[in-house]
Amino acid sequence: MNQSVVIAPISESLSEFISSNQYSKIIVIADNHTKKHCYPVLKKILPKHSLVTVPAGESQKTLATCEKIWKAMTEEELDRHALVINIGGGVIGDMGGFCAAVYKRGIHFIQVPTTLLSQVDASVGGKLGIDFQGFKNHLGVFDLPEKVLIDPAFLNTLPEREIRSGFAEIIKHCLIADAAKWEEIRQKDFEDQNWQDLIAHSVKIKQQVVEQDPKEKGLRKILNFGHTLGHAVETCFLNKPQGQRLFHGEAIAIGMIMESYLSFARKMIDQQTLTDIEEFLFATYGKVNISAEDIEEIIALTRQDKKNKGKEVRFSLLKEAGQCEYDVVIAASEMRKAIAYYLG
Amino acid sequence: MNQSVVIAPISESLSEFISSNQYSKIIVIADNHTKKHCYPVLKKILPKHSLVTVPAGESQKTLATCEKIWKAMTEEELDRHALVINIGGGVIGDMGGFCAAVYKRGIHFIQVPTTLLSQVDASVGGKLGIDFQGFKNHLGVFDLPEKVLIDPAFLNTLPEREIRSGFAEIIKHCLIADAAKWEEIRQKDFEDQNWQDLIAHSVKIKQQVVEQDPKEKGLRKILNFGHTLGHAVETCFLNKPQGQRLFHGEAIAIGMIMESYLSFARKMIDQQTLTDIEEFLFATYGKVNISAEDIEEIIALTRQDKKNKGKEVRFSLLKEAGQCEYDVVIAASEMRKAIAYYLG
Repeated sequence: MNQSVVIAPISESLSEFISSNQYSKIIVIADNHTKKHCYPVLKKILPKHSLVTVPAGESQKTLATCEKIWKAMTEEELDRHALVINIGGGVIGDMGGFCAAVYKRGIHFIQVPTTLLSQVDASVGGKLGIDFQGFKNHLGVFDLPEKVLIDPAFLNTLPEREIRSGFAEIIKHCLIADAAKWEEIRQKDFEDQNWQDLIAHSVKIKQQVVEQDPKEKGLRKILNFGHTLGHAVETCFLNKPQGQRLFHGEAIAIGMIMESYLSFARKMIDQQTLTDIEEFLFATYGKVNISAEDIEEIIALTRQDKKNKGKEVRFSLLKEAGQCEYDVVIAASEMRKAIAYYLG
Repeated sequence: MNQSVVIAPISESLSEFISSNQYSKIIVIADNHTKKHCYPVLKKILPKHSLVTVPAGESQKTLATCEKIWKAMTEEELDRHALVINIGGGVIGDMGGFCAAVYKRGIHFIQVPTTLLSQVDASVGGKLGIDFQGFKNHLGVFDLPEKVLIDPAFLNTLPEREIRSGFAEIIKHCLIADAAKWEEIRQKDFEDQNWQDLIAHSVKIKQQVVEQDPKEKGLRKILNFGHTLGHAVETCFLNKPQGQRLFHGEAIAIGMIMESYLSFARKMIDQQTLTDIEEFLFATYGKVNISAEDIEEIIALTRQDKKNKGKEVRFSLLKEAGQCEYDVVIAASEMRKAIAYYLG
């Protein structure tokens, strides 16, 4: 595994990092949850530092929040030799990393992902950014943190729904790159999964893919399996009343069922593989109702997907369990069928 | 010379670029001046494209203007295979380039610098960004355009004051890297300089430096000669009434006199070199009055310089004409003397 990712108790990994580096100043970015549940552990270890807290949630992943963070960095007079430490899930990691990468054209940052989702996905691979005009990760850059410090103990601070959401990316990693692991996880209930093992497995797969294609010119697109329709569903549900909103992994689980159907419809996977996938995902995530109006919005939203070229909407689809192909052009009519299949 | 920079009539260089590349969409970013004076030439050559116009001036180089540009890009449904063409001076190049580098984590852009300043400086080297909270280029990234298309004919669209401002960066390039060229230009009046020749000379020097140190870890800092105090003076004067504001090159000319004095005070250049520099710069730019209050603000502003480390303010100073040394730590008391020397 690439040395930039360390899976260990944060008290050890962070102490080690701090003692072997010299920074002019340190600023910690957290949300109100991680400030309460995770920051206290770091506070004991860190030398003099300042803390910026932003409200929790995807709705905060905006230019306006970045502006607040940049103001705090400026007020603290951070120079180019300062360090930013992001403690939180994907929102804090993506946004705090983006703020660091853009401040004075880039200062060092480390990611301390505290959710399963960010431990197995967002913290690895150098994609940073924020949402804009309702589009997910519409503004951003590629830039690597100095270190990603993963402490599985932080999972104990999470509600079950958060862990279930993160599990979706683990399932995705198995489906696109490791058929044997997919067989292993689908035989077990959610409650019986071994998170420590699965985090290391997911990080390894993601690193292998990203190392071969850091800027997503080709291969890296396979990590977007389930994400073309999944992101569109997630974005569509952003505007719903609080109780109906979806966690990222929940939307991706929906996207994976729809896109497995597309893989089947294109004769890339067989009926049995499709059945295995949908049974496991429905059993883990249940089914979400999608109205006729939402369907058209979801299809329209796929046009903003970053993998697209011109008017073509491009998908990453399964070739079989454990393999994935990218740049598959799919028409709106096919998407409509895939959504209908999901809704059954 | 690196092939990414082409010095030629824009009708030739742009036609060549467009015919040898395929883009899904093209968006042109201009300000109200370049829309009027430069865009018409490009419009004839370009295939179907859209145009975003922003008001001219450094005061527009803000996050709020970027937001407008990103909105326009989103409304045009630009995908990752789209092209941004920036037509203008440093403000448009830095800001339009930054917007392209961040949109969907980066799309292609080309720079069409239309001022002498941007032709000899801003368009080369990959520094992109915007001002923030009154600090110059406080937010930004490093990213290279596909091409820089320099057409010296655009200089005919400029007021003399603009050309004089751009000349300061040419003088800087000579002083830090080419003593013979410095001797050549200082023997001639401003009106007699050969711009076509000097543009090519400056681009070559800047490219050589940037290629050796693209992210300014070391050597590239020499390009900041005159800029530590120069930027601080420029920033200080941003808040003055319109008639007293300084063009970038005018502020850098002031900074070069002050920093040549510092080079002399540190025994890095001799008295004759200092006299030559100040005589030529005063003859070309005159002297600007700086109040006692402004002096303290200027010194405080140098603390935000990107070259600093911790509380140390670091300068790039001349070793002799044609050579420059970086990371020279200078105290506030020395700066005060340098400003006093300038004011005579």
